[in-house]
Amino acid sequence: MFDTIAAISTPRGEGGIGIVRMSGDDSIKILSKVFRAKSEKKVEDLKSHTINYGHIYDGEVLLDEVMVSFLKGPKTYTREDIVEINCHGGYLITEKILELLLKKGARIAEQGEFTRRAFLNGRLDLTQAEAVMDIIHGKTDKSISLSLNQLRGDLKNQIGILKKMILDVAAHVNVVLDYPEEGIDDPLPDNLMDNLLEVLKSSDVLIASYDKGKMIKEGVKTAIVGKPNVGKSSLLNTILKEERAIVTHIAGTTRDIIEEVINLKGIPLILVDTAGIRTTDDVIENIGVKKSEDLIDKADLVLFVVDGSRELEEEDIKVHDQLNADKVIGILNKIDMERKLDLTPLNKVGKWIEISATENLGISNMEDEIYKYIISGQVEDSSQKLIITNVRHKSALEKTKQAVENILETINMGLPMDLMAVDLKEALDSLSEVTGEISTEDLLDHVFSNFCVGK
Amino acid sequence: MFDTIAAISTPRGEGGIGIVRMSGDDSIKILSKVFRAKSEKKVEDLKSHTINYGHIYDGEVLLDEVMVSFLKGPKTYTREDIVEINCHGGYLITEKILELLLKKGARIAEQGEFTRRAFLNGRLDLTQAEAVMDIIHGKTDKSISLSLNQLRGDLKNQIGILKKMILDVAAHVNVVLDYPEEGIDDPLPDNLMDNLLEVLKSSDVLIASYDKGKMIKEGVKTAIVGKPNVGKSSLLNTILKEERAIVTHIAGTTRDIIEEVINLKGIPLILVDTAGIRTTDDVIENIGVKKSEDLIDKADLVLFVVDGSRELEEEDIKVHDQLNADKVIGILNKIDMERKLDLTPLNKVGKWIEISATENLGISNMEDEIYKYIISGQVEDSSQKLIITNVRHKSALEKTKQAVENILETINMGLPMDLMAVDLKEALDSLSEVTGEISTEDLLDHVFSNFCVGK
Repeated sequence: MFDTIAAISTPRGEGGIGIVRMSGDDSIKILSKVFRAKSEKKVEDLKSHTINYGHIYDGEVLLDEVMVSFLKGPKTYTREDIVEINCHGGYLITEKILELLLKKGARIAEQGEFTRRAFLNGRLDLTQAEAVMDIIHGKTDKSISLSLNQLRGDLKNQIGILKKMILDVAAHVNVVLDYPEEGIDDPLPDNLMDNLLEVLKSSDVLIASYDKGKMIKEGVKTAIVGKPNVGKSSLLNTILKEERAIVTHIAGTTRDIIEEVINLKGIPLILVDTAGIRTTDDVIENIGVKKSEDLIDKADLVLFVVDGSRELEEEDIKVHDQLNADKVIGILNKIDMERKLDLTPLNKVGKWIEISATENLGISNMEDEIYKYIISGQVEDSSQKLIITNVRHKSALEKTKQAVENILETINMGLPMDLMAVDLKEALDSLSEVTGEISTEDLLDHVFSNFCVGK
Repeated sequence: MFDTIAAISTPRGEGGIGIVRMSGDDSIKILSKVFRAKSEKKVEDLKSHTINYGHIYDGEVLLDEVMVSFLKGPKTYTREDIVEINCHGGYLITEKILELLLKKGARIAEQGEFTRRAFLNGRLDLTQAEAVMDIIHGKTDKSISLSLNQLRGDLKNQIGILKKMILDVAAHVNVVLDYPEEGIDDPLPDNLMDNLLEVLKSSDVLIASYDKGKMIKEGVKTAIVGKPNVGKSSLLNTILKEERAIVTHIAGTTRDIIEEVINLKGIPLILVDTAGIRTTDDVIENIGVKKSEDLIDKADLVLFVVDGSRELEEEDIKVHDQLNADKVIGILNKIDMERKLDLTPLNKVGKWIEISATENLGISNMEDEIYKYIISGQVEDSSQKLIITNVRHKSALEKTKQAVENILETINMGLPMDLMAVDLKEALDSLSEVTGEISTEDLLDHVFSNFCVGK
């Protein structure tokens, strides 16, 4: 059905082991042209799911000493015959072996093409294929755990259940419309009404889970703002020190802005410090104001830091005026010193947390509060394990929800049943879109273009 | 004998597949605590050299979907039981799995520790172990091919032959000394004299091969010099375009210097362009002169470029005066234009090659000449396949050579045989040093500290 593809499947770089992988009907034939097993077994006689020691030759030229894994389809990732050549992990050696396989008849794999075949051959649905890449890119345990659930088929199964419910409704409607003489009751039976309500509720819950899912997967952009010398950098350093599990350093988008990613109870917190913003003269002040406005605008959460040991100053007010009350937590710093600050005018801040960054006071309480803030408003019911993290799923489910709402409206208005047909189809199609049962080349290209080569 | 070690064996980064590897007696026991095979087979019942699909769990928490290779010692790389967990190739997922193995009783492997065990358990000698890392770091086919020969045991075998020859001599000397009453002839029999001469010749050839081996392995540092506007950058670009097999880009040590590595018939040529050096005013001129002096000093080969279409200028002379006649090739550029340059005063240059960089004339001839220059003086006899690339081997063989020379001198001077004893031991010890039969912890630490973790 497909040609035989090959790619380097391990990350590029120098390491102990590199893997060059092939998938397709000719995998064995191509391997037999380049591999000599130490056991002198013919490649055709290798047993499936075995590891075989030997050498890769280009004609009479030795290329490398290798271990070859042979996996006979359909019990494989792609459902096709797969050959994995475990060679020495250098840049050049993996490339030479890949080149040789291409010379002997394989085609270089596109990004994500192995997984695309797994999808096209029915080994995975689209939600599971997407989960594969999310696992590889996963930044925290929690995000990987969500992706693993998705890879296991949790979302696929849930979508299957919802589809079945809609199909039951559609079947009933069809019968009524096709056999009006049968005298089947026009109003939808209760159990089918329940189906519709259940799909509505379920898609609603899934859509609502997206914001949380996105935060778990992509992180919460958190800006630390405040006038100079209130302790923004100390706060950042304290958080970074506390949370030893720093996920990664992201190069700041501008020189003045420091971004650090920490792992807050499984949620990546992308901390943006505005330490570089200064207000010494008008021009720079304007730039500074503009920058912090930008940051505040783009952030999911703003930590507004004030210095409890100093009187309120105009600069505090200035920063305060830029805040959006919906996403701010106040941090009252320097509580180890005598309190001089009056918080009353800073009325955009609903909640103040008292800390001393330098004395390390109140830090873990602050982290609890930040965590609570992030998940508040989110479905935190432990029975709600299904969380979507992909905007593609969200948009499809929004279409499902809209279609079901239309159907319910048709019923409520007592309109004839045949007006439901279009919306029933839309509900089914949008659900199928999530799992990829309905998919276009464009959609697949889009999904798989985010993959690594070799996966 | 050893504890069980674990490491991530694939390069760090995001890719389709990552491998976490364990070696040691407890590999199976540790695997059984974390792996659940899809087949529901017990880990203890897995067959050697098979690949097994399943999941890694930390207690009840699913960590990843994996393929596990199980290799029972001694038919393995380390001669110990080896487990390779092929998981999704992300940064975090490989680390989580490694962490889990460590929690369950494995110890994190040091750099090169898998290969060190292969050495200590007799699977490889030291020359072969060193070849493993050279393959991973290999920059051209030729350098990898040399390392593969070494991994195959070519050097090990040759050293074995030389040792046998010296041992024969030592045995004879011992008999003569221990049983003077046997009346064995004092002068060494002809075949044993031949042995000594053969070891002398062979170690000489190996030592001489080192310069070439080093160039093949590490590359030839080639500086392109000449006054401004003679076409240095065009020359660089032309060579780079011609040789599509660019090995890698090396970040220049200074901003003004561009380094590119090309693959010239299997030898890495590290091209250094001094395009940034300008001579517009005295200060900068001095810096420029200093810099090009440095470059010329450090280079293995200097390409001195002149413009054939212009009269000789003082600046040509200035650059010419800095040259070292032993390592310069002259490049007469712009031969597509009318010739005005008199080369006579540029007498440090023994050989001129005529090209036009912009018209792409004479380029492949120039490359042939550069290649010839590099290997001239080097042993290019095709029967001489053994080339050493490691300075450690070279110094040990120099000791062997010196010891044999001492022995021959003892014989030539008609001195008593017992004076040979020390030198015979030195010859044997230095040969054993190459293969690691005689090795100290320090030496091993030194050799393996250049390895990747996970190999």
